[in-house]
Amino acid sequence: MIKRKRRRLGVAPKIAASSGISAKESKVTIIDYNEKEFHEKEIKNIGECCIFKDAPTVTWINIDGLTQHELLEKLTRDYGLHPLVVEDILNTDQRPKMEDFGSYIYMVMKMLSYNQAEAEVEIEQVSMILGNNFLISFQEKEGDVFDSIRERIRTAKGRIRKSGVDYLVYTLIDAVIDNYFLILEKIGEKIEVLEEELINTPTQETMRNIHSLKREMIFLRKSVWPMRELINGLQKSESSVIKKSTGIFLRDVYDHTIQVIDTVESLRDMASGMLDIYLSSISNRMNEVMKVLTIFAAIFIPLTFIAGVYGMNFKFMPELEWKYGYFVALSLMAAVGITLVLFFKRKKWF
Amino acid sequence: MIKRKRRRLGVAPKIAASSGISAKESKVTIIDYNEKEFHEKEIKNIGECCIFKDAPTVTWINIDGLTQHELLEKLTRDYGLHPLVVEDILNTDQRPKMEDFGSYIYMVMKMLSYNQAEAEVEIEQVSMILGNNFLISFQEKEGDVFDSIRERIRTAKGRIRKSGVDYLVYTLIDAVIDNYFLILEKIGEKIEVLEEELINTPTQETMRNIHSLKREMIFLRKSVWPMRELINGLQKSESSVIKKSTGIFLRDVYDHTIQVIDTVESLRDMASGMLDIYLSSISNRMNEVMKVLTIFAAIFIPLTFIAGVYGMNFKFMPELEWKYGYFVALSLMAAVGITLVLFFKRKKWF
Amino acid sequence: MIKRKRRRLGVAPKIAASSGISAKESKVTIIDYNEKEFHEKEIKNIGECCIFKDAPTVTWINIDGLTQHELLEKLTRDYGLHPLVVEDILNTDQRPKMEDFGSYIYMVMKMLSYNQAEAEVEIEQVSMILGNNFLISFQEKEGDVFDSIRERIRTAKGRIRKSGVDYLVYTLIDAVIDNYFLILEKIGEKIEVLEEELINTPTQETMRNIHSLKREMIFLRKSVWPMRELINGLQKSESSVIKKSTGIFLRDVYDHTIQVIDTVESLRDMASGMLDIYLSSISNRMNEVMKVLTIFAAIFIPLTFIAGVYGMNFKFMPELEWKYGYFVALSLMAAVGITLVLFFKRKKWF
Amino acid sequence: MIKRKRRRLGVAPKIAASSGISAKESKVTIIDYNEKEFHEKEIKNIGECCIFKDAPTVTWINIDGLTQHELLEKLTRDYGLHPLVVEDILNTDQRPKMEDFGSYIYMVMKMLSYNQAEAEVEIEQVSMILGNNFLISFQEKEGDVFDSIRERIRTAKGRIRKSGVDYLVYTLIDAVIDNYFLILEKIGEKIEVLEEELINTPTQETMRNIHSLKREMIFLRKSVWPMRELINGLQKSESSVIKKSTGIFLRDVYDHTIQVIDTVESLRDMASGMLDIYLSSISNRMNEVMKVLTIFAAIFIPLTFIAGVYGMNFKFMPELEWKYGYFVALSLMAAVGITLVLFFKRKKWF
Amino acid sequence: MIKRKRRRLGVAPKIAASSGISAKESKVTIIDYNEKEFHEKEIKNIGECCIFKDAPTVTWINIDGLTQHELLEKLTRDYGLHPLVVEDILNTDQRPKMEDFGSYIYMVMKMLSYNQAEAEVEIEQVSMILGNNFLISFQEKEGDVFDSIRERIRTAKGRIRKSGVDYLVYTLIDAVIDNYFLILEKIGEKIEVLEEELINTPTQETMRNIHSLKREMIFLRKSVWPMRELINGLQKSESSVIKKSTGIFLRDVYDHTIQVIDTVESLRDMASGMLDIYLSSISNRMNEVMKVLTIFAAIFIPLTFIAGVYGMNFKFMPELEWKYGYFVALSLMAAVGITLVLFFKRKKWF
Repeated sequence: MIKRKRRRLGVAPKIAASSGISAKESKVTIIDYNEKEFHEKEIKNIGECCIFKDAPTVTWINIDGLTQHELLEKLTRDYGLHPLVVEDILNTDQRPKMEDFGSYIYMVMKMLSYNQAEAEVEIEQVSMILGNNFLISFQEKEGDVFDSIRERIRTAKGRIRKSGVDYLVYTLIDAVIDNYFLILEKIGEKIEVLEEELINTPTQETMRNIHSLKREMIFLRKSVWPMRELINGLQKSESSVIKKSTGIFLRDVYDHTIQVIDTVESLRDMASGMLDIYLSSISNRMNEVMKVLTIFAAIFIPLTFIAGVYGMNFKFMPELEWKYGYFVALSLMAAVGITLVLFFKRKKWF
Repeated sequence: MIKRKRRRLGVAPKIAASSGISAKESKVTIIDYNEKEFHEKEIKNIGECCIFKDAPTVTWINIDGLTQHELLEKLTRDYGLHPLVVEDILNTDQRPKMEDFGSYIYMVMKMLSYNQAEAEVEIEQVSMILGNNFLISFQEKEGDVFDSIRERIRTAKGRIRKSGVDYLVYTLIDAVIDNYFLILEKIGEKIEVLEEELINTPTQETMRNIHSLKREMIFLRKSVWPMRELINGLQKSESSVIKKSTGIFLRDVYDHTIQVIDTVESLRDMASGMLDIYLSSISNRMNEVMKVLTIFAAIFIPLTFIAGVYGMNFKFMPELEWKYGYFVALSLMAAVGITLVLFFKRKKWF
Repeated sequence: MIKRKRRRLGVAPKIAASSGISAKESKVTIIDYNEKEFHEKEIKNIGECCIFKDAPTVTWINIDGLTQHELLEKLTRDYGLHPLVVEDILNTDQRPKMEDFGSYIYMVMKMLSYNQAEAEVEIEQVSMILGNNFLISFQEKEGDVFDSIRERIRTAKGRIRKSGVDYLVYTLIDAVIDNYFLILEKIGEKIEVLEEELINTPTQETMRNIHSLKREMIFLRKSVWPMRELINGLQKSESSVIKKSTGIFLRDVYDHTIQVIDTVESLRDMASGMLDIYLSSISNRMNEVMKVLTIFAAIFIPLTFIAGVYGMNFKFMPELEWKYGYFVALSLMAAVGITLVLFFKRKKWF
Repeated sequence: MIKRKRRRLGVAPKIAASSGISAKESKVTIIDYNEKEFHEKEIKNIGECCIFKDAPTVTWINIDGLTQHELLEKLTRDYGLHPLVVEDILNTDQRPKMEDFGSYIYMVMKMLSYNQAEAEVEIEQVSMILGNNFLISFQEKEGDVFDSIRERIRTAKGRIRKSGVDYLVYTLIDAVIDNYFLILEKIGEKIEVLEEELINTPTQETMRNIHSLKREMIFLRKSVWPMRELINGLQKSESSVIKKSTGIFLRDVYDHTIQVIDTVESLRDMASGMLDIYLSSISNRMNEVMKVLTIFAAIFIPLTFIAGVYGMNFKFMPELEWKYGYFVALSLMAAVGITLVLFFKRKKWF
Repeated sequence: MIKRKRRRLGVAPKIAASSGISAKESKVTIIDYNEKEFHEKEIKNIGECCIFKDAPTVTWINIDGLTQHELLEKLTRDYGLHPLVVEDILNTDQRPKMEDFGSYIYMVMKMLSYNQAEAEVEIEQVSMILGNNFLISFQEKEGDVFDSIRERIRTAKGRIRKSGVDYLVYTLIDAVIDNYFLILEKIGEKIEVLEEELINTPTQETMRNIHSLKREMIFLRKSVWPMRELINGLQKSESSVIKKSTGIFLRDVYDHTIQVIDTVESLRDMASGMLDIYLSSISNRMNEVMKVLTIFAAIFIPLTFIAGVYGMNFKFMPELEWKYGYFVALSLMAAVGITLVLFFKRKKWF
């Protein structure tokens, strides 16, 4: 599930470093709006990507796919981005963080989605450049959780068209965090299924599922914890990019992040508890197996011994001559057997 | 026991979001008082809910049920609440927190109650809006822990009628926290019952009870820990809503919260310890089973072997011809058996 | 061992709340002294309890038993105590803490004593009100660890008669903390006894003792940890009640508290380690049992099989006709048996 | 893998202390450059080592091997190093740290490399003295991760030739940290191999591999954690040696360090999880063994008992005389056997 | 190994409290030096001990044994020590700490030494009083780690004779910390021996050794952790006793302390890992035992059953009459036996 990409070794930071990523074309869409106007277009020609640069309107450039280097170079030049930022955008194994470069803020976060088909959590890195009147977002591939926001901009629903680019950024982060709740729900369901299994039919497979669940949680945690710092950083940023009035919304996303973290920690605690049940359940079943063995062995071994005694070939064995010797022996066996059965019954072994 | 409600995804914060909640009517009661006057009424007409808004008296509006949206909209308009606050009130899966909006303070907390019938802890979210002379409290359903406070207001008992709205808020928080002690007591009793069971008759069921207890504690902890921050926030609030003189009472609730947290942590430690006893107790019982098996097998297998030897059909077996051969053989068996019994006795196996 | 008392629910803080406590009379003693004078008397009449209130001498009022409400009311009135303080004094399930009320400082701590008869640690709550020239101490019942201090005051030994009330408070706290060392010693002894037992004759009982030891430590910890804050609070108090010169003594008690905490943590670590030994020791013993079983079974089952073969009743079995057939068979059995014994010897099973 | 070298005991800090290290000659290379000029030479004569000392160009003196004491003494004298710095350079068991001596900054870090041949992580200590226009680096032996940087300086690629000595230091630290990712990747691969093994064929050897993996992680952690402080120290340094403009690059390395730490922690969590699988897998296999034993024993012991009964030699045993007695007995055995097989089938034992 | 001494209960701090310590005479040596002069003498007469008090030279008074109370009283009087300091010196169960009394600094630390004969770590408390031109050190008994420092003073080696008393204190602390590395090395060796044992021949004894190792580490940790604060306190002390120039040396000892702490933590982690190996190794061995038992039982029980069948005494058993019946039976047994052996081989049980 997890691929760790090695960063270039000692190589100067530059765009060419990302040559390992497949060369599929990027898809670039621009949404430009203010309270009254609204433009949306898909860019085919790199030259067009910065046309709204100097307009006072809010410009959201979204790029799906990180392979078109000329595009990145143009953006870098036109918007004056730092080479390290470009390198970070291309390296899709970043830890969520925010960096304030004065004239713009750079953010990376992890967008999680649940792949129903493979019952797996998928991680995609989203980078954002937030300037005074523009937002550039970079995604690894097409498909994201921002469609409802695009719809809201188009239909001028809510306050989004009346607010600045910092409110746009808030809605995007909010959408990312909201999606975490979906993932947590899926994991919560998995845990419930596993617990059911644990109680009824625990197998070595259950154990492996618990393990893979714990693993998923380790990586979920790695994605979520730094979000706290990220949003905190935005809240405390002295950059002019973030307006005071947006602070209250950031506080709200911050609370949601804390809630996600809390839930991840609770789920971790629960998963640990499951392991304990599993181990105790194995031990219990071994106990059961042992008891069955012991009951069979302990009852029949003495009986077999009695039969063995009267199977000896001594010349002089008085009992063998008795008329009812055989029945006496059978009764003796029955008596011993019943005594032992009662003994184990009293010990509550069955 | 725990239901995680998914928050709306990327949807603009607005009241309509709560449409998932059942449409039962809310019950609204207003208590308005100062040292001399006292009014209490149940509101049937939404228009009435803000009638005491501009009066200098303390007004406590309590709303049970979160489904009457017009009511919420009216309150929002009349008291100038932020849309995010309304959203948080409607989302009943909040983490306890307090937020200072300048002219009012918003608080969420978890009211726990013990459902005797189902032997379960029930969680209900209580939101409060605390303004200069009003308090609006929102609950998920009817029934709460505030009745004794209402009674104190009615009868002008204690200092409550002489004090402001911040003292009222203190008594409400105090009542919520006090109720946690009740829950802790119930859990403490459960632990005692479980320990008794563990020592006398541990079963797989006991294990599951320990597990569900740990789970309850995880969620209890999630409700209690943030209360610390909440009360701390109130104490340090620079808002004019909280008067200096109330600080000492808040310090008192704060101490109680710490005590609840301490107790939750101690109970967690105890529950972990129980698991260790359980596992060691299973191991001990397996040991017992093994010993029984070993004693039976180790004593009778050699005896059966001796019987087997004298059951062989060799033509020439001198012992078989002896007059007392049979008795010698029986004596030999007895000797071997007694030796083995003594051997296991000395090993302290029984 | 631990009784959790539920606090009153939503009831206004007042003295009557403590009605649950038995109505035995309180015992009140006053010690009043300065460098030259010394008075000690047992108060029978409530009116007398505040006679030294305005004297410049140091007054120590000690109250054993919390049931005489008129007395508490008088003290409250005369010394101007806050109602919450009175409530805290009466609620004997407080967490150790100190609170600065300006004109006086309120402290609660836990006095531990070891009940030799029941081999148990007993907890008693001690509350203290420290004013400019008076100290009021409240205890749950008679008997405390302060006798040597009383003796020192009587005999004017050491600096105590020359110092103020803050030095008196230091000696009292010091005596309480000193007693913790005694308790730790007792627990240390218990651990040594348990370890001896673990190594020699571990039983399910040992396990339970370890568990109850851990439990004792959980509660000891709960009593000791907050003492750190308490003393720290006294040290940092800006109240005029604590003189600069006493600071050095408080630092000393603080160091002792840290030492107690350190030791509690070490003992906890040791107790956890014991559990591991216990579990491994059970496993080892099961191994031993298994080995005995395996050796017996593995040696005698093949022999019994051989005997069984020659006990078959086939018409034509050449060996049976041999003259030394029987002895050959016995020798064969001996050979098989010895081989197996050697096999297990080489495996170091015995 | 780990050798802990004892520091000299109570001996005054001086160069002679390092006499324990083998006396192989050190290899000294000097790279001196600015935007236009570039010199690189290997020093054979100690006198030459400080020739660029007063030049305004950036001078990088790299020393492989710590045995040439005259060289160290000359550097110490010429560059005015503190004796403790020299001692720290010679003691190759330092914890990564940075110390600001005003006119120069001293840094120690751990350079990790993966020895493919022995499948082991190797640790080498790198010390650096960073002055206004010089950098002296000390390594334990030849071979490092800096070759690409040397190449960049030679070819004037990137910004390195245009920047000062602080940018050079950044590239060196970056190269060291980058190499940690390689190591983490190797460990990640090991974990994957081990997990495969755990699931398919867990042996005692697997357990030992997990243990040695955990050990490697303990030491990796010890190397990486303090790097955080080191880079933080550089960032916050008020020394004139670090220019403002380099801060952004240090922030970047800092982020990478955090990422390494995060990954180490995640790998640790995973390794712990593996242990749990291992233990549960052993328990499961014991269960399997027990079941086989129980099935064999429980089925054949009753059958053997029946055979034993009809092997008794009583005079009067009616069944023996029956014509089909033998077949009835065989059928009885078959019936008992099949019943037991069905019983275990229903218990899902096979 | 660990003796916890109870402190006096409620007794005023005074020298007589130490009466429990054996009355052997103390040994007092004075070393007095400056750059040019040097005096060393063993004091026999208490009057002599303060003769260098007013000299501007550095005076180091070392006292081995804490039993000569007149000596302590004289020092207390002459150097104006606080009674609590004297009490702390006499109580040899102190936690390492430093206290600044303005005119002098008081320090306690733990000097560890390895008793080769008993393979045990021994703890001795060293107290130091550091004044402007004097240092008084108290040790529990003769023999310490300071001999090389004395030698350096005598021979005027290094900077020690040129520096003040604060440099002397630094060298003493450095010597104490250096010795910790020796102890850690010994413990490291023990761990290696134990791991070898664990892998090859784990016994219950190994378990106990791991336990005692963990215990040693608990106490080592208790001695080392507070050293961090102690040295930190010295570094940040505003007392005139510590000169600025010594700060760099203190930073060095601080680094060493951190290194010791790091190593202790790593060793603890390793010891925990050993326990896991131990438990898994016991489980594995039980598995082995079980397999042996199962193989023997499962192979021979069916064979014995066959023999039992043909040992029945039915009148009419056709097989018994067959000419080759016996050999057919033997072949059948061989076939069954071989099948089972192959079955277990395929299950990889041997």
